[in-house]
Amino acid sequence: MLIALLPGDGIGPEVIVEARRVLDAVCGDALAYEEAPVGAAGYRAEGHPLPPATLALAKRADAVLFGAVGDPSCDGLERHLRPEQAILGLRKELALFANLRPAKLFPELADASALRPEVAKAIDLMIVRETNGDVYFGEKGIRTTPAGRRQGYDIMSYDEDEVARIARVGFETAKARRGKLCSVDKANVLETSQLWRDVVIEIAADYPEIELSHMYVDNAAMQLVRDPGQFDVIVTGNLFGDILSDQASMCAGSIGMLPSATLDVNQKGLYEPIHGSAPDIAGQGKANPLATILSAAMMLRYSLGKDAAADRIEAAVAAALAAGHRTADLGGTTTTRDMADAVLAAL
Amino acid sequence: MLIALLPGDGIGPEVIVEARRVLDAVCGDALAYEEAPVGAAGYRAEGHPLPPATLALAKRADAVLFGAVGDPSCDGLERHLRPEQAILGLRKELALFANLRPAKLFPELADASALRPEVAKAIDLMIVRETNGDVYFGEKGIRTTPAGRRQGYDIMSYDEDEVARIARVGFETAKARRGKLCSVDKANVLETSQLWRDVVIEIAADYPEIELSHMYVDNAAMQLVRDPGQFDVIVTGNLFGDILSDQASMCAGSIGMLPSATLDVNQKGLYEPIHGSAPDIAGQGKANPLATILSAAMMLRYSLGKDAAADRIEAAVAAALAAGHRTADLGGTTTTRDMADAVLAAL
Ligand SMILES: CC(C)[C@H](C(=O)O)[C@@H](O)C(=O)O
Ligand SMILES: CC(C)[C@H](C(=O)O)[C@@H](O)C(=O)O
Repeated sequence: MLIALLPGDGIGPEVIVEARRVLDAVCGDALAYEEAPVGAAGYRAEGHPLPPATLALAKRADAVLFGAVGDPSCDGLERHLRPEQAILGLRKELALFANLRPAKLFPELADASALRPEVAKAIDLMIVRETNGDVYFGEKGIRTTPAGRRQGYDIMSYDEDEVARIARVGFETAKARRGKLCSVDKANVLETSQLWRDVVIEIAADYPEIELSHMYVDNAAMQLVRDPGQFDVIVTGNLFGDILSDQASMCAGSIGMLPSATLDVNQKGLYEPIHGSAPDIAGQGKANPLATILSAAMMLRYSLGKDAAADRIEAAVAAALAAGHRTADLGGTTTTRDMADAVLAAL
Repeated sequence: MLIALLPGDGIGPEVIVEARRVLDAVCGDALAYEEAPVGAAGYRAEGHPLPPATLALAKRADAVLFGAVGDPSCDGLERHLRPEQAILGLRKELALFANLRPAKLFPELADASALRPEVAKAIDLMIVRETNGDVYFGEKGIRTTPAGRRQGYDIMSYDEDEVARIARVGFETAKARRGKLCSVDKANVLETSQLWRDVVIEIAADYPEIELSHMYVDNAAMQLVRDPGQFDVIVTGNLFGDILSDQASMCAGSIGMLPSATLDVNQKGLYEPIHGSAPDIAGQGKANPLATILSAAMMLRYSLGKDAAADRIEAAVAAALAAGHRTADLGGTTTTRDMADAVLAAL
């Protein structure tokens, strides 16, 4: 099976190297790898954040392991050349519409959350975020009003098929977990949300065993602080999912710990740590490689059917934390390499 | 000076009564009051959540003191008849474009926040949210795609004048506080946000003494959990402001404590507690009246030029808390009436 390795920018290359070492230890020759530049690295190498050869590799591969993109040197570029376009382009071109973000606190890290330990410990939720539609991909631009003023606009929309597709992922995810699905929208203001809610309710007929609830996004942002333990699975659109999943991650402690998967209809996926490229600490051996190592574990489970290997990696990460290893983001001094070594030792 | 009292639904009437008692104690006959139905109460009385006579009163008054709207019995109504439309209608018809939401923890309530006390205690921020534009008021609807499928859509937009107007409120607010303004957008994806950012930077030229920063909304949602003490003033659009201000409020403890103001260009304003109508506890004497009492204080300060009276009320609220009074939302058993009495006693 072929894995596309896209290290990207900043700390991306450092954490991808460590994830690769862990994959080698667990899967040996069962996986083959090809690497390609993406983000600012893609722009420097080929003049585009998502060079054609990188896109072709991602399409050809069985799964994509992605580091991070983003570099301040690109701030002045036109939007379509900025590093972030790589991730948007990959999601769209590979039809990766279902972003899965687990947020769960490793008990060893209860002190790393800004939430009270008793609140943080109760977090065990999965956010299912749609990533192919919404205001992200609608028509947009800057136009001039009749009064001659600059106006920015972006069209938000979802059609019923797009909502149904992600709703099913939400229900299936809830079925494999604790059976509770909370759909988040802003149906009191947005027509896009009203259709979203109507369709989620229609799909619910196929899942009588799932306990479905609906919550407005402003209330959801409150509840994720007040009592995140109330959630099992949250399903929501691209924009609300962007905001809530980052918020939920932070509730669960360091963002250096949290993995993500973005899947197409065939469970092919792109796997990435949720942290960014962190240019301020790049090249210093300070980055926490665990989010990427856990992303590799998600890849084994979701796209490659290797559940046992995924379990082994996750157990080894827990063991490394239990042994007291802490990178800078967790308040310690363990280096990137030493943290990965601790995981390897525990395997 | 004439105050329009719009109690609304659920716990709205109970908390408005108490705020009125406090205002009477502090301002005596200097203020006159007229009351009118709004929300589900407006719909029941006049067939519309914002009856014409209620709107006329709000326009005529020097300030509006608003309880809360929302009632499950209205869930089946068409959107334009639902209680929430009252608040959207008032914002639009009265050109109330600047929603100010302070989030600050009363030190006595450090234990009521889900955040660690040391994180929660550092919160002292003001969110300045635009409330006349964005995806809230753009063209919207349900249409049929060429493939014959239902599609919901909402147009997000801001023009440069709308952004400039709220940006100035942000800068002025920062000037009167600690001199730091953080503008929140999603400029890496949205053209509306790109224009927003460009215009905020243009306006910044008039405020060289203010330290301006920009943050993506997903990162802001993270930072409000990780380290809310870093913020002084946040300025943002209608949709992001809806989400972030509710999140920030919860970080600062019970939502039963937090007031808000929504102002027009002449400092005329609508004042309301940020909590909703809470139909589940309505009529039981359990509601916390402090958010509404503090909203009345904001009204005295912002719209009526009575700073000293506002200070007195705020000090009395702090004294009531220091004396140990706690309503149910704060983990106690003090009733709505007793809490207001405690404030009156401290005046
Ligand atoms: C980089 C950016 C375009 C992206 C998004 O908004 O989707 C990121 O925030 C994410 O959540 O993966
Ligand atoms: C009731 C609703 C329309 C409203 C909004 O979204 O603005 C509310 O959430 C608020 O923040 O005042």
